[in-house]
Amino acid sequence: MTEDRLARAGLSRLAEPGDVRIAQVVAQVGAPHLYDDVLARRAADLAADAAGRLEGLDPAGELERAERAGIRYVIPGDPEWPDQLDDLAHAGSVQELGGVPLGLWVRGPVRLDEVRDSVAVVGSRSSTTYGEDVARDLGAGIARAGLAHVSGAAFGIDQASHRGALAAGGVSVAVLACGVDRAYPAAHHALLEHLAGHGAVVSEVPPGCAPLRMRFLARNRIIAGLARGTVLVEAALRSGALNTASWANGLSRPLMGVPGAVTSAQSQGVHQLLRQGAGLVTGPTDVLEQIGVAGEHLVDPPRGPERQRDRLSRRHHQVLEAVPVHRSVGLRALATTAGINLRETQVALSYLAEHGFVTQADGGWRLGERALADLR
Amino acid sequence: MTEDRLARAGLSRLAEPGDVRIAQVVAQVGAPHLYDDVLARRAADLAADAAGRLEGLDPAGELERAERAGIRYVIPGDPEWPDQLDDLAHAGSVQELGGVPLGLWVRGPVRLDEVRDSVAVVGSRSSTTYGEDVARDLGAGIARAGLAHVSGAAFGIDQASHRGALAAGGVSVAVLACGVDRAYPAAHHALLEHLAGHGAVVSEVPPGCAPLRMRFLARNRIIAGLARGTVLVEAALRSGALNTASWANGLSRPLMGVPGAVTSAQSQGVHQLLRQGAGLVTGPTDVLEQIGVAGEHLVDPPRGPERQRDRLSRRHHQVLEAVPVHRSVGLRALATTAGINLRETQVALSYLAEHGFVTQADGGWRLGERALADLR
Repeated sequence: MTEDRLARAGLSRLAEPGDVRIAQVVAQVGAPHLYDDVLARRAADLAADAAGRLEGLDPAGELERAERAGIRYVIPGDPEWPDQLDDLAHAGSVQELGGVPLGLWVRGPVRLDEVRDSVAVVGSRSSTTYGEDVARDLGAGIARAGLAHVSGAAFGIDQASHRGALAAGGVSVAVLACGVDRAYPAAHHALLEHLAGHGAVVSEVPPGCAPLRMRFLARNRIIAGLARGTVLVEAALRSGALNTASWANGLSRPLMGVPGAVTSAQSQGVHQLLRQGAGLVTGPTDVLEQIGVAGEHLVDPPRGPERQRDRLSRRHHQVLEAVPVHRSVGLRALATTAGINLRETQVALSYLAEHGFVTQADGGWRLGERALADLR
Repeated sequence: MTEDRLARAGLSRLAEPGDVRIAQVVAQVGAPHLYDDVLARRAADLAADAAGRLEGLDPAGELERAERAGIRYVIPGDPEWPDQLDDLAHAGSVQELGGVPLGLWVRGPVRLDEVRDSVAVVGSRSSTTYGEDVARDLGAGIARAGLAHVSGAAFGIDQASHRGALAAGGVSVAVLACGVDRAYPAAHHALLEHLAGHGAVVSEVPPGCAPLRMRFLARNRIIAGLARGTVLVEAALRSGALNTASWANGLSRPLMGVPGAVTSAQSQGVHQLLRQGAGLVTGPTDVLEQIGVAGEHLVDPPRGPERQRDRLSRRHHQVLEAVPVHRSVGLRALATTAGINLRETQVALSYLAEHGFVTQADGGWRLGERALADLR
């Protein structure tokens, strides 16, 4: 355990993330020097700010406890450190926050140095079905192209794009404004556990820390900083997602936006960005093009039938579950079994048929090849 | 009747619109000279092309018949000539068509020299409800800003934007690919008659001519050429509306596009244009800004009650006509009289009530102040 790691862990407990002064001083004199100064109350400003936090400070113990909890602390210079974050040193500040993070607390099997080729998908918490569908497609397309997907962990766009990336078997990374051992929002506990099990959950603030407004703003620069480009799917005017967009601009990395209906408040912020020069993207292919990755990997790689089935929506599953294995059944009976109205059942069947899960037979519907493969 | 007018009328009968050679020769030697050459079979190419049309050619008689039918032939040099079309001489060609038109056949009270401050709204025939709503708003907003509205006469976006402009009491101009005495599509007979009665119906081809594919393409340059800027509302990839967009670009005039859902095929062509640099607009205010007109006129100017009534839709009129003058009547009776179902009658009544045309009384509906003012 190096002195630098201990100092950074200590400072990350003492200071709020995105403190530009600290990032600058650390860059100049090194973390251990600043940490010693704070402990000796010589770094006047920070020491005063951190006074209440000095008591019981135990970075060595904290790092050990984190390790036992499956959480590692990745700092600049570590083989796992994602170098692309170093660009934050020259990316200015947004709302007075900025700078290279002291380190990142990480849960999950994905190594951060392997997420260099990544795309961030961000957007509104109060998204529309349209926005969520688009976000899911983007997450899946990014994953299929072999790129990592980065987002927050909020409701709406964040969630939908993670789900898309995960469903496509891709690498997905969530950057949190709270400790990586906390689930915020609580409803995303399962999603975060899944990401910690298969991707990575990352935070600049130490385990146990609560999400605060300023921490979200500071967090946004990590999302934009990890990714080669950032896509904004839906955002009302004044949406927090626009803050992440500012970071992509500050980093001079591709900022992209997905247009929507001009009658949708959730697209107004995106349209504003598009007018200001963000790249208009309508799907994964456009995104790959704008970040300079060829689109040839976009074609679905061969995959097992389970995977395909995983990609169905809940509604599709409901209808598919209602189709008997060895005989065909009429639309009305199917709708009754599925507990869905006729029209929606018909829509779901069309989709399922198009993808080979069901097929028409004897004036009704039965399971198709792809669904049968699932049963073998 | 000048020699120039006769020659141009004759040539417009002999040649197809948008013939760049003819526009160039006319610019060089004048229409009478070319016309004489054609009649004398000296202009080899054109004379050969026009051979079948020379027989029975009678421009003087044609101009007289047109005048009797309320159709005038406006040519360059006329006080009514819209000078902005002269820019077509330097706007290149699109699909081998181009050039300043020989003249324009016009029906309607609006003078073409008064449509200098105009905006073209174009788009797909197979539009979505979304596109039509946006087109209607744009037409209305353009009209309220005191600008003329220019479009074709097709189903979908063209129709919706005309209706918006007309409902707002504005000047609306339809440019046709057939003679101005013909209704194409036939279902738009009433719309075209209304435009001929209150706005202007314009064509480069003489009365009686049928709409041909090439004539639509040639027509598109007149739409873009009349307007200060062109807005594309919805267009699939390869839509004809993209041809009009090319003309706006060729004329170096503002080309604007309305974004939509990336899942809508009808927005794909627009998104393509936006990526290529067209201005993203979300409503009339954006359009005014992009063509350099301040938005202060957007507020409804004060207007007489007749005007207000003129702005009602046919459906609203049907319902309003069914409301008795001196007593109130129930919803069901109203619907029966209007010949419209209950739900639509209710919707129309809500609109009419909101605008003061009807009011609730004695458990039914009677005429409101605004409608009564009409009767005085």
